[in-house]
Amino acid sequence: MKIIKLIVQTNKQSYPIIIGSRIANQLPKIISKNSIKYNKCLLVIDNKIPKSSIAKIIKSFSKKKTFLYFFNANEKNKNQLNVDKILDILLKKNFHRNDCLISLGGGITGDVSAFSASIFKRGIKFINVPTTLLAQVDSSIGGKTGINSKYGKNLIGSFYQPSLVVSDINFLKTLPKREIICGYGEILKHSLISDKKKFLFLNNNALKILNLKSPFIEKSILQSCLIKKKIIEIDEKEKNIRKILNFGHTFAHAYEATLKYSKKLNHGEAVLLGIVSASKFSLKNNLLKENEFKIIKDHLLKFKLPMNIKNYFSIKSLKKLILFMEKDKKNNSKKINLVLLKKIGKPIFNLNFEKKKLYSFLKDELTN
Amino acid sequence: MKIIKLIVQTNKQSYPIIIGSRIANQLPKIISKNSIKYNKCLLVIDNKIPKSSIAKIIKSFSKKKTFLYFFNANEKNKNQLNVDKILDILLKKNFHRNDCLISLGGGITGDVSAFSASIFKRGIKFINVPTTLLAQVDSSIGGKTGINSKYGKNLIGSFYQPSLVVSDINFLKTLPKREIICGYGEILKHSLISDKKKFLFLNNNALKILNLKSPFIEKSILQSCLIKKKIIEIDEKEKNIRKILNFGHTFAHAYEATLKYSKKLNHGEAVLLGIVSASKFSLKNNLLKENEFKIIKDHLLKFKLPMNIKNYFSIKSLKKLILFMEKDKKNNSKKINLVLLKKIGKPIFNLNFEKKKLYSFLKDELTN
Repeated sequence: MKIIKLIVQTNKQSYPIIIGSRIANQLPKIISKNSIKYNKCLLVIDNKIPKSSIAKIIKSFSKKKTFLYFFNANEKNKNQLNVDKILDILLKKNFHRNDCLISLGGGITGDVSAFSASIFKRGIKFINVPTTLLAQVDSSIGGKTGINSKYGKNLIGSFYQPSLVVSDINFLKTLPKREIICGYGEILKHSLISDKKKFLFLNNNALKILNLKSPFIEKSILQSCLIKKKIIEIDEKEKNIRKILNFGHTFAHAYEATLKYSKKLNHGEAVLLGIVSASKFSLKNNLLKENEFKIIKDHLLKFKLPMNIKNYFSIKSLKKLILFMEKDKKNNSKKINLVLLKKIGKPIFNLNFEKKKLYSFLKDELTN
Repeated sequence: MKIIKLIVQTNKQSYPIIIGSRIANQLPKIISKNSIKYNKCLLVIDNKIPKSSIAKIIKSFSKKKTFLYFFNANEKNKNQLNVDKILDILLKKNFHRNDCLISLGGGITGDVSAFSASIFKRGIKFINVPTTLLAQVDSSIGGKTGINSKYGKNLIGSFYQPSLVVSDINFLKTLPKREIICGYGEILKHSLISDKKKFLFLNNNALKILNLKSPFIEKSILQSCLIKKKIIEIDEKEKNIRKILNFGHTFAHAYEATLKYSKKLNHGEAVLLGIVSASKFSLKNNLLKENEFKIIKDHLLKFKLPMNIKNYFSIKSLKKLILFMEKDKKNNSKKINLVLLKKIGKPIFNLNFEKKKLYSFLKDELTN
């Protein structure tokens, strides 16, 4: 397979995203080809990556100046304690600000690693090697880093762009199906907020994508990266247009939080439910037309994707759901801020709705 | 007295520095005049500021949406624990990313506050009201934030520019003389790395400045801010020219660290000793001419400023001093990186010296 390279250009810097298959074994070569130099490096490695894949990658690095930190990546461990552990290694080994931290893992590993890199000596080089579909199409692009606190998810963090992102499709082959669906949630979201052509590509090929068939999986990853890249290049710090990336997410965050971020619903599944909710709410508010809503709904139906909140929540959860929607960190006022759709490919943002309106909407969804 | 306003323009944003006397009481007015809007704000207040000054400032803010955190500012408390305490208030009070954190205090309060602001929801608005001379002429400008770890000072931190800096000369009147000398260390450093005219202004007026006489104190603060502003506007992230701000500081850090950051030597006093050491080392390496070195030395003599490391260290400290110079976070190699002077106003940076050379230099300084 061809290796694809795209360049993300933010205000202050630019960095490449490399997409390919079986490229993680040549990481040191790719790093040096992209003119990234360092003396020491720390690999932060998600324990979920198969040991055989990791062994090959580690072997490709010089033994002498490479340090390892194995990380049990889960939402509970996405905290200050693990940031402190990473910082402690960097400090103990006397890493310099020109040295490098490399994350190998999913979004959680990437977020914790990137946040650590951003605050060590005011920022050391950071390379992200996302190993899940979700991380490859979403969290590895855009420079958002974060950890959870007891008050909620990602409330502590920074904006910090990597020096390089290397997405190896081969990692995806060992992932459970649910993890692929999780990433697909963001792929679908990206298409719905950008243009109908891209959605139609998914609508024609979702099965092949979900089964990781070449070149469909690569094309969908590239397409997602390109959509997100375009948006963050215009608005790195989410002052404006970047907000459209939250399409479906105010709902999704409430769904995840109400289920206490348990395994009952992963992030991408919550996003799929959130996409349906936001689309339906767009319809109910006379923004989206019935036929366009049906196209979206049929897409989820056809590929047997999670779409019905009644499978996850009862009317008893209603108050909690609304509370979490209100507490979403994107909310500025007492109203609930939402990104909605006018058409497939035409999002609208900065819309505020009364709590009551959302309450009666979700009540309908949970009862009818 | 006139209110002086200068604008700092970094890559991504610009912000004003306001210098005046008795202006801190009108903080909310100044904030709104500078088009900074927020809903809630947290004041982080150094306990060393006289209660009467603080009472007036607090009174000027709306009671309802203003929260207070009193902070015992010292190097020991400049740590993650206090960052966590500040973050906890922001989280508990559900601060939004458009809300504001205001620091009232010296450099330690400013650094801890700014770091907290930079990582809360990936960055909230930050206003710095420096109350010491050192903070007004140095740490409040440039966007460096940081906390200490058990491995050393300022090893964890970020680059984060404030939205506004308000320097009120009136705060300085309650400071002990040693604190004024401390700030003067950086004022002198700034003049020596920028131009001889600015040094000569200090040489003619240092006594008036040290006694806080108007308009000399204001002029020296403004001059210092302008010098630093120019440098950081070119090189915010210290990739290049910003390094000259470390003139005297590799020595100074070693002096402070060897005395365990005790009250025997404050930062500015260490910088004054570091200026003498770096100038003498410049002379010994045939960079600075004898007569120029004498001008610098005479300046310190004339105003009875700390200048003799023998008053603080004996030959027994030599190994420790060298060890700390080596461990300085600006060092990239095994050699010791120094900023030196070719002339007053003409610094030279990225020079590397063998440990041995520094060892014999400091040995001479401590014995002869």
